Amino acid sequence: MRIAVDAMGGDKAPFEIVKGCVRACDRIDDQIILVGRDALVQAELDKYEGEYAPGQITVFNAGDVIHGDDSPVQAVRRKTDSSMVVAVDLVRDGRADAVLSAGNTGALMVAGLMHLGRVPGVERPAIVSPLPNIGGSGFSLLVDAGANAECRASNLLGFAKMGSIYMKDAFGKKDPTVGLINIGTEETKGTEMLKEAYKLLKASDLNFVGNVEARDISSGAADVLVCDGFTGNIVLKLAEGVAWDIMKTVKQTLTEDALSKVAALMLKNKLGALKSRLDYSVYGGAPILGLKGAVFKMHGSSAAFAVENAVVRASVATSAGFLAAIEEAMKGAELE
Amino acid sequence: MRIAVDAMGGDKAPFEIVKGCVRACDRIDDQIILVGRDALVQAELDKYEGEYAPGQITVFNAGDVIHGDDSPVQAVRRKTDSSMVVAVDLVRDGRADAVLSAGNTGALMVAGLMHLGRVPGVERPAIVSPLPNIGGSGFSLLVDAGANAECRASNLLGFAKMGSIYMKDAFGKKDPTVGLINIGTEETKGTEMLKEAYKLLKASDLNFVGNVEARDISSGAADVLVCDGFTGNIVLKLAEGVAWDIMKTVKQTLTEDALSKVAALMLKNKLGALKSRLDYSVYGGAPILGLKGAVFKMHGSSAAFAVENAVVRASVATSAGFLAAIEEAMKGAELE
Repeated sequence: MRIAVDAMGGDKAPFEIVKGCVRACDRIDDQIILVGRDALVQAELDKYEGEYAPGQITVFNAGDVIHGDDSPVQAVRRKTDSSMVVAVDLVRDGRADAVLSAGNTGALMVAGLMHLGRVPGVERPAIVSPLPNIGGSGFSLLVDAGANAECRASNLLGFAKMGSIYMKDAFGKKDPTVGLINIGTEETKGTEMLKEAYKLLKASDLNFVGNVEARDISSGAADVLVCDGFTGNIVLKLAEGVAWDIMKTVKQTLTEDALSKVAALMLKNKLGALKSRLDYSVYGGAPILGLKGAVFKMHGSSAAFAVENAVVRASVATSAGFLAAIEEAMKGAELE
Repeated sequence: MRIAVDAMGGDKAPFEIVKGCVRACDRIDDQIILVGRDALVQAELDKYEGEYAPGQITVFNAGDVIHGDDSPVQAVRRKTDSSMVVAVDLVRDGRADAVLSAGNTGALMVAGLMHLGRVPGVERPAIVSPLPNIGGSGFSLLVDAGANAECRASNLLGFAKMGSIYMKDAFGKKDPTVGLINIGTEETKGTEMLKEAYKLLKASDLNFVGNVEARDISSGAADVLVCDGFTGNIVLKLAEGVAWDIMKTVKQTLTEDALSKVAALMLKNKLGALKSRLDYSVYGGAPILGLKGAVFKMHGSSAAFAVENAVVRASVATSAGFLAAIEEAMKGAELE
């Protein structure tokens, strides 16, 4: 397989992007195509000579860059030679099987929609983000994690179908449970849209376990958690913020005085394990599902470890055939 | 002042409710009226003889109880002799200045609407919940914390006005900052409703600081955080759930083996301080603002400490005149 990576997108590009790709080579046999200003990217890549199989990583030139504050639609239309658009076009043209970027999320979605298009039957492509189960083990997938602020009930059914397929193909989880994020567990709770979504999910052949209250999200109430993109954005960022603030406070507490520092030393490995349990980047990037191509968003601040995991997960999921499975699953929706 | 307390509402009634009221007597001079089955409540109160000034706590009989799973409208209509309804009626009849209940939230809202009514100019009464600032110090107030799942932009302006007044009167915070919970900081972000709410807040005389992203909520981005009740419910319960799950995991980690237990002992006071920073009940109950009467919801699982704080905060806020201030502030809205 050939994986195109936008070497210029994200806060730590190209340094950490290139480093992460080199490390991924230890775990996968796929070919990686780094897209960006070739002199710059090649110079970065040369630092790792001998650390990956010759020819496993190649550089593909793209002179322009889409920035985080660029308007997505304008940027994709005008910056046709940007690393992101060129990387997406490698997939469109059959020269790559998957594309990853840590750049502007909106622009990646627009590039995917305009240059690859939607799978027939998919009303709205959605971003899928892993969410660690703090109180348990493992993680859930949150769909939609922010692409579609306002949704119809049928959109949520689509998200649930696509999320279930990705959970199975990327992580090997058979018949994943699906929960609907809501303000109460009874099926009469929430907005009219959510009551309708509940009915659609219940009538589907998905492994639907009902409504999930926000207090049960972080203990892993379902494998796939479905919501509109507004709620998904709130859930993802709030969980990140609270976890970050608590860990920061714990760290401050453990360095306040000599006694605490000794205790902290005694607990070092354990606290490290706890911190890594909260780390989203273990689970790879966030796929945009529903596009006619495998597109993965990496966090804007992705360092090498996150990039490495994202590349490996993209390889696993794409090889398992999640694209074909989504196409097949959405066929019915197209006819309705 | 006279404070009516529903002695029968909540998971730990009447034991913890009565105990909390007794403890509150150490901090306030107001009279407390415990409403519930008089034999039961009196027997409970007798345990604390001598621990409060004679006559400071009295018992008012109410034979019935509204349960957590009762339908709010039906319960309030049919159970006219329930402790909750009788306690609300004490306020309506001028026999009490404030009422608190840890019972069925929906029923308390309905009892407030039906028996006390709305302040003129208030479109929707809202529940206000304190939210600890984990990453900083202090707390924010979240409005609406769950009463109105779907809102118009003008509702949110009302929430912001009422929340600001309560922040000032209950906690002495002058000119509190107001933030709008949204999926981005730019004023063009979010749903049409939120874009409109942004304009209304910006044009108001409130101390509006703009949109607040969910990742900044727990570090105290604004004193008053405004949102619809669906979002408020998600924010409140998710923050609780994540904090709870992390602390549970920290606790497990610290008791796994002998070395960890020693370290835990060394950190005991500090971890206790961290835990209490996450404790919502320090900041008192959650007022339902916009009613013609001071109505406070306590968490269903409130123990004595939470009840004590809720009673004290209700006393402070009501004495400071938040009811009159809201009436005054909403006069303009009524004329619009």
